[in-house]
Amino acid sequence: MNDNKTERLRIIPLGGLEQIGMNITAFEYGDSIVVVDCGLAFPENDMLGIDLVIPDVSYLKENYEKVKGFVFTHGHEDHIGSVPYVLRELNVPLYATKLTMGLIEHKLEEHNLLKTTKRKVVRPGQSISLGDFRIEFIKTNHSIQDAVALAIYSPAGTIVHTGDFKVDYTPVFGDAIDLQRFAEIGKKGVLALMCDSTNAERKGFTASEKTVGKTFDTIFSEHTDTRIIIATFASNVDRVQQIINTAYKYGRKVVVEGRSMVTVISTATELGYLNLPENTLIGIEEMKNYPDDKMVLITTGSQGESMAALSRMAANMHRKVMIKPGDTVIFSSNPIPGNEKAVSKVINELSMKGANVIFQDVHVSGHACQEEIKLIYSLVRPKYSIPVHGEFRHLKAQAELAESLGIARDHIFILKSGDVLELSEEGAQVSGHVQTGGILVDGLGVGDVGNIVLRDRQHLAEDGIMIVALTLGRISGQILAGPDIVSRGFVYVKESEDLMEEARMTVEDALAGCMNRKIIDWARMKTTIRDSLSELIWKRTKRRPMILPIIMDIDA
Amino acid sequence: MNDNKTERLRIIPLGGLEQIGMNITAFEYGDSIVVVDCGLAFPENDMLGIDLVIPDVSYLKENYEKVKGFVFTHGHEDHIGSVPYVLRELNVPLYATKLTMGLIEHKLEEHNLLKTTKRKVVRPGQSISLGDFRIEFIKTNHSIQDAVALAIYSPAGTIVHTGDFKVDYTPVFGDAIDLQRFAEIGKKGVLALMCDSTNAERKGFTASEKTVGKTFDTIFSEHTDTRIIIATFASNVDRVQQIINTAYKYGRKVVVEGRSMVTVISTATELGYLNLPENTLIGIEEMKNYPDDKMVLITTGSQGESMAALSRMAANMHRKVMIKPGDTVIFSSNPIPGNEKAVSKVINELSMKGANVIFQDVHVSGHACQEEIKLIYSLVRPKYSIPVHGEFRHLKAQAELAESLGIARDHIFILKSGDVLELSEEGAQVSGHVQTGGILVDGLGVGDVGNIVLRDRQHLAEDGIMIVALTLGRISGQILAGPDIVSRGFVYVKESEDLMEEARMTVEDALAGCMNRKIIDWARMKTTIRDSLSELIWKRTKRRPMILPIIMDIDA
Repeated sequence: MNDNKTERLRIIPLGGLEQIGMNITAFEYGDSIVVVDCGLAFPENDMLGIDLVIPDVSYLKENYEKVKGFVFTHGHEDHIGSVPYVLRELNVPLYATKLTMGLIEHKLEEHNLLKTTKRKVVRPGQSISLGDFRIEFIKTNHSIQDAVALAIYSPAGTIVHTGDFKVDYTPVFGDAIDLQRFAEIGKKGVLALMCDSTNAERKGFTASEKTVGKTFDTIFSEHTDTRIIIATFASNVDRVQQIINTAYKYGRKVVVEGRSMVTVISTATELGYLNLPENTLIGIEEMKNYPDDKMVLITTGSQGESMAALSRMAANMHRKVMIKPGDTVIFSSNPIPGNEKAVSKVINELSMKGANVIFQDVHVSGHACQEEIKLIYSLVRPKYSIPVHGEFRHLKAQAELAESLGIARDHIFILKSGDVLELSEEGAQVSGHVQTGGILVDGLGVGDVGNIVLRDRQHLAEDGIMIVALTLGRISGQILAGPDIVSRGFVYVKESEDLMEEARMTVEDALAGCMNRKIIDWARMKTTIRDSLSELIWKRTKRRPMILPIIMDIDA
Repeated sequence: MNDNKTERLRIIPLGGLEQIGMNITAFEYGDSIVVVDCGLAFPENDMLGIDLVIPDVSYLKENYEKVKGFVFTHGHEDHIGSVPYVLRELNVPLYATKLTMGLIEHKLEEHNLLKTTKRKVVRPGQSISLGDFRIEFIKTNHSIQDAVALAIYSPAGTIVHTGDFKVDYTPVFGDAIDLQRFAEIGKKGVLALMCDSTNAERKGFTASEKTVGKTFDTIFSEHTDTRIIIATFASNVDRVQQIINTAYKYGRKVVVEGRSMVTVISTATELGYLNLPENTLIGIEEMKNYPDDKMVLITTGSQGESMAALSRMAANMHRKVMIKPGDTVIFSSNPIPGNEKAVSKVINELSMKGANVIFQDVHVSGHACQEEIKLIYSLVRPKYSIPVHGEFRHLKAQAELAESLGIARDHIFILKSGDVLELSEEGAQVSGHVQTGGILVDGLGVGDVGNIVLRDRQHLAEDGIMIVALTLGRISGQILAGPDIVSRGFVYVKESEDLMEEARMTVEDALAGCMNRKIIDWARMKTTIRDSLSELIWKRTKRRPMILPIIMDIDA
């Protein structure tokens, strides 16, 4: 314990406050740092060619000796996805509930990090001590099992972090959110509440996961004579459980298809989070032994991801499943913002093959709406409010809710990633800023694609490239070969011979000008080529391809 | 009139049935062709660098002498946007209502086609004769004024084409849809109904445009002490009218900002479709003379378009308007599928600047929902149903509605663009297919970017390009200069020197191999360079940049 009475608690979000994704937050007191979650983000549209984005953890590396461990709220990619990347730089122990740890371990195994990483499984209700902190895991509900909120006890006060949550009074598996414990902790006094903002713009209450089970029952009872194919999020084990239960009730066999779906289901089954009635799950090869009206397929692809199983079925590119007229296909999901057109494309393709596609009202969110957020605030009664998990608009919507509940505006902090919020019973303020940001992962490369490369990719994507190559005599300064003009992604050359010929003449004229003016400086020659060609191309086509002169020289 | 009794009517959609956009349909009887609408489509996500897409009208060109004219249902881009492109190939007369024609003429003027194009303004209720056809214009309601449905009378029977429509019993301007005329025509017998499918998946009725006016009134009354900025669709003149009316009622001046907004408002005002109370509209330069709480800005950018006025304000890039804390910003629109993230970005930026952003329930659709579609079917009572205007899923949703109303399944035709549907009282069938497709417009180029160029752009966008340049002696076959490796959009070279050095050595080894094996054929040398470099890069980075070898030679 640090004896310095003036010591304050520092909360430093290293990601997750500009977007839904890449959640990671450091809590620092004295010589102790505890990190909550370590997620990844999926690339924005303008991050061409990027696979995923991980957080910059420079601050943690600089304070390596202080970092006592990572604590996880649940097993979604935006909370655990960066673990294998960050652990390579920062080998510290991991604490999580059983299913969350199971999913993390699957990643560690893939990255060959399992043996070198200390791990401890914690049950909801348990507490762990990490340096100056004590962390209590509190049962919540979410669209994946084993989600927890955290009570983070420090000498400066208690922080409650909800993680991603909803209030489900009738969950499919396990207990409802431990509202009593939220109340108890609240009663003892909470310095700050960090609460999920994802659905803070939505009025009312998120419906119970069980309501989806009822919808499945209705759909199954109305489609007893067709095959049923259901796409949903691989990680939503309760949803999968409800599909399996309904299939069992209606005497159907279940096939699971799609890599991530198979991974999650096997992990969940192994750890006891999925209850499979005997002889219900069959292999995809056995499908042919059963009539269509005795089959259910559970598949990935609910977001229209082009390589996922359902998308491949829709595009006639799946090796084992062909969509047939009459198939009932259910999207048990809503499109995540940005995926609407991809999902629509798959719906169109399925419909064209004669499938009956059901995509409305077969999903509930895993995040708390306004009434649930108000409930948590009213149980916890924090002194300060720190909305987390969302874009600015979502954080602001929660801030407005907090204000409506009587929290003073200057006790509400909408932070940016990297902000250092210092808190104690005496007050709270943003006292500084540490380095943060997204590191781009492209294939094996981590951080080797930055703004310049992305800008070039955008330029290339927009109008393509024209390369002008020539060879000069080093001594004579004469053009010995070229200029050759090669283009890609600019125009279909065979149908634009006149333009390409004009381009070549323009470059030759520009070079002749250089020769006449005795310009042999390569940089100036390149600029001359670029300017003259660029002007011609703009005039003729109103396009701006990248123009790349390459000059070589030889002893002649 | 053609006397051949066996002559059938041919309906040939040349676009508009795979997407919402690029509407154009040919009606052919004997020696007469009439074309309804001539729209453009906006590029899909994978059409990198493309500005817009126009229809392939080869079929019309091949039958030029038959084409009697283009008839337009309303003035939206997806119905009139290709006119200037198509008219360059096919100079035929245009028929449209006044506002629609005004918007078309604006385009013709820009493309210098006004003088050479025959045009006739038609009033709702009027009919025109075009060859074997008589076309009646029927008043409807939509999100732009002067929208009409068409009754297309041919010797083979009558077709009713709704255009884009909704049923608005209380329109802001002009009359409600002429339901009586639909009934009258229906009573006389209609061969086929071609009906708008956009909202065919939505239950119920689309609300009247007037309801938005009431919402404006409420918002204005609740925000009397802030500036109000409203983004909406430029073409929704009634929406603009309601904003102006509300501004006038609350004693505010109105500024209009954004090029397309200014264009539409001036056209609409000129033609009498917009009623401006005196001294309400002011120039943007005069804004400084009025306090914020006496101002309303109407602006473009409701879809988050990056160059539109509101987006520029949000990004601090607008030269004349700065967003201030307290500004009330209203999105009087819903995001069109695909624009969700762009809209969200603008909402976030506005919120960060302290604006109060209102984006829920300040919009109504311009398209008929299920109950309105059923109403039209019940008035028209067509023999055949041809759902139009939508993606397959929307067309199919309408087909299901038609079936529910008693139209036999084999009397419902979900067509593809290019299908030739032959109809008469005796029967209907798809009898053939004509050439159709989207022609890509990129800058000044029409059709010079095709699949190969797009594929290259996608490849470049994903992983960039590596260029390997070298100069050979023509006689000696020796490498005289290079290999030089230049990359763009692949990796940040200064931080990847080892990789680039390894790449150079790999290419040199590959070339040495060629020399040893006396390979001097350029094609084989290029393949060798490409294969060896590509293998190295994949192994090291798991990326596949485009690899482009350039070989030059000189007399040495």
